[in-house]
This record gives sequence, structure tokens and C-alpha cells, in this order.
Amino acid sequence: MTRRIRLTLEYDGRAYAGWQTQKQGERTIQVEVENALRPLLRETVRLRVAGRTDSGVHALGQVACFTTESEILLHRLRRGLDALLPDDIAVLKAEDVPLDFDPRKSLGKIYRYLILNRPARSPLLDGRVWHDRRRLDLEAMRRAAGHLIGEHDFTSFCSVDDSSRQRVRRLYDLSIHDPDDVGVLRMEFFATAFLKQMVRTLVGTLHQVGVKARDPDSIPEVLAAHDRSQAGPTAPPEGLYLFRVFYPDSPPPSLKLS
Amino acid sequence: MTRRIRLTLEYDGRAYAGWQTQKQGERTIQVEVENALRPLLRETVRLRVAGRTDSGVHALGQVACFTTESEILLHRLRRGLDALLPDDIAVLKAEDVPLDFDPRKSLGKIYRYLILNRPARSPLLDGRVWHDRRRLDLEAMRRAAGHLIGEHDFTSFCSVDDSSRQRVRRLYDLSIHDPDDVGVLRMEFFATAFLKQMVRTLVGTLHQVGVKARDPDSIPEVLAAHDRSQAGPTAPPEGLYLFRVFYPDSPPPSLKLS
Repeated sequence: MTRRIRLTLEYDGRAYAGWQTQKQGERTIQVEVENALRPLLRETVRLRVAGRTDSGVHALGQVACFTTESEILLHRLRRGLDALLPDDIAVLKAEDVPLDFDPRKSLGKIYRYLILNRPARSPLLDGRVWHDRRRLDLEAMRRAAGHLIGEHDFTSFCSVDDSSRQRVRRLYDLSIHDPDDVGVLRMEFFATAFLKQMVRTLVGTLHQVGVKARDPDSIPEVLAAHDRSQAGPTAPPEGLYLFRVFYPDSPPPSLKLS
Repeated sequence: MTRRIRLTLEYDGRAYAGWQTQKQGERTIQVEVENALRPLLRETVRLRVAGRTDSGVHALGQVACFTTESEILLHRLRRGLDALLPDDIAVLKAEDVPLDFDPRKSLGKIYRYLILNRPARSPLLDGRVWHDRRRLDLEAMRRAAGHLIGEHDFTSFCSVDDSSRQRVRRLYDLSIHDPDDVGVLRMEFFATAFLKQMVRTLVGTLHQVGVKARDPDSIPEVLAAHDRSQAGPTAPPEGLYLFRVFYPDSPPPSLKLS
């Protein structure tokens, strides 16, 4: 009997050329998971994914699914897959979902971005944060963030390679938390969907505001320009995490009452 | 002119046999830092340290000092040392201190212990947390912690190898925080001083309470027994961090008003 199985994955993206790649000979998360599934399912499956993370980007809750004829028990699948995967990829959950489940059709996603904002590097956070020594003006960054929340055409804030038909997205929330006790500044981006390199472009632009290289009230003009060159640089991948993907059976907390 | 310099260090303890070791051929933090100092100071120095961390234990704020005749500028020392050290050891600060400064004579220290308390392992936290799948009863653990706070003879809660003349220590605080959004439970231990393997023995015992293998109200009897065998097992090193060491010129927040 045909079934569709949804996987929730955590990974350290440092060793990979992203979820998938066009280039020959590079390791990808997708290929690692597909290869580890083969001996368990005794068939070759193709994964569909919620968000194609770029090279070096991490995930705390990536969601992928596949269709199979296998009758393997879910707990055996989860444990077996986890054992066959490399140490830097883990299976958090394996669940049966309806055959029409599409991981791209989520209610929304949360991306997290971490900046280590202190003079010294951190051995314990190396490869997991963007390290920037300059003191950031959080109030200015939060003021700029206020202009980004809501429904906008984010053409200025995505890669020129983005292939979306239209680039209007609703950013439900963009929160900038005070640094923790080792100096890590956490930013959370919650939107319906994200364009290619959207979070990293937003972070790069907010960072310019933080170091006073850009006026926080210039953001509306940048949005209106529909021109990538008006925004800041793309922040490095090592600070980015795909944190959560929400579906009707696991909605985001703030939408639960609606 | 003779001067004494205080270093504040962060390190990932995984690759090391602790701060120091008796065994031949094992890497230690102390030897790495002493070796990296030699070309900068043009002399061989011997480090004194605030807390001798065990094999595999991490530090977010270890403090060590040495005496030198070198006139090197502090910012050049900090940068040079940081560049010469392996990636998994970093220098957070280098400061001149009085010649009688003794890193062992602190006002107190905070150790942090992290338990990843969820079914799945975490690639992003591997080697930095103790992973335990069993659901922990935090209320019971906090009740047990209440019996440990204060001044006690902690003989039951340290290694039988501990060489202290007397084992009375004041535990100012032992806090058990709710798990964060990836399932990491954080415990903080703030005391005047710690005995050998004291934090790991406390964690191992509190963990037994958390999995209902020990009554939280049995703690006073364990303290009174002065017998290591009455306490729980020693928790693994990978969850332990030396977080802060306090001195008169950098007192703990709660003692600032006194």
C-alpha cells in the first residue's frame, strides 16, 4: 500500500553544499538522506522538502517527505535512518501523512539567525554563528525591522536568481532579542514563505543599520525600489537555521486560536 | 619589570585530557597555552589556574595567570596568543593584575551543566551536552536542589580522590531552568569553591531524582553520610562548562551591593 512519510530533520550544514546542488561531486543533505533510506525501504525514493537550505546553512526542524510501498514501522524507520545517517544529520521525527501532503505548502516557517557580537571569537560556537566584533545598535535594528514586518514585495531582499513568479510575502514577525550571556544576538523571522537568500539579505541589511552604515528609516525606500542592489550584503550562511515549519496538524502558536 | 597577567579563556574541551594531566603524551589546555605564550613573551612561563577542568569539560570563562618580564602590550598579547592557539581555545581577555593575584582565591565560581532532554540526538549539540532521553521531573529536581543550597560538607558529592583538607563549601545557588526550545535543560551552580567532580556528582544525583530513581528528600541523609557511595553516578563531562570566576575587581552581581 502506498504511503507518504514525513521526516523532521536536524543538521549541521557545515560539511554540505546545501539541501541540494547542481554541481557534481558535492555532498548534499538530500542525497545523504535518500541513500540512508534505501536499505531500510528496499527501494529508491526521492525526497521533497520544505525549504532548500543553502550551503553551510543549518536546520533544527527541516521537513521532508517521500512516498513508499514499504510497510516499515515508523519507530524502526526513525531509529534505523538515524543510525545510517552521518553524525551531522539526525532524524527528529518520522510520521505518516496523507498522500497529498506537500512540504512546500506550509502555514509558515521560522528561520533563526545568530550573530556573536563581542570582540573575541568563540571556539564553542565556531561555524554556528556569524561573528562580528562591532557593537550593534539594537534599537536602530528593531526600528528598521518594524518597516519590514507585514506584507511586502521583497524583490529588493532576495537573490537575483530567485525564480518565484511573484515576490510578495507576509513577514508575520521579525524579532531581535537582546544578546545572551555569551554575547549571542538571536533574530527570528516568521513568514508565510521565504524567497531565495531572503533571510540572509534581511540580516545583512539590518546589520548595516546596526553598525550605523544605513538609516533605519531608509527601509521603506529599499522595499519600494524592487532592486536587490539597494539592500545590504548577504549575511554568511553559518548563522542561519531553519527552525520550524508549520502545517495544519502542527500550527504555529499564534495561529492556534484562529 | 616583573608583571602578572591574567587571561580569560574559552575552550571546547573535547580534544583535551583536561586543564592538566599526569599522563604522558596527552594534550592539555595548560600546555597548549604555555606553548603559545613562549614565542610572544620570549620566555617560558608556568600558568596558575582558577579551576582545573577535567578531560572533556568546557570553559566559557576560565581564568589563568602567569608572571613575566615581558613588556608586550596587552592587546598584542591577546591577539598574538589567540592566533597561535588551536581553533578550540580562545583568549577572551588579557589584563595586568597585582603581583599577588592568585586565580585560586576567587570570590566564587559558576559552573553550568547542560542536559539535552528529548528523544532524538542533536548534531548541532553533539559533545556539548549530556543527552538523556528519559523525561525529567524538574519539580522533584528543584526540590532536591533546595536541600543542597547553603553551607554543607560535600564529602558525599565529590571524587574520593579529592585532596582538600576540609570539604565544607557554600553553594550560593543551584538553579534548574526550564528546557529551551530545542530541549536543553540548563543548571547553574554558584559556590565559593568546588571539590573535585563536585558538579558532575551533584548532576548525577539530581538526575536520579529527575528519573524518579531517588527521593528528593533523601538528599539531607546523603549529605550527612559523608560517603561518596551514597550519592549518584558522576555525570559525563561533555555537559559541563566553567562559566565564570569572580574576583574583587569583577564581583558576582548578587554580591555587588555588599
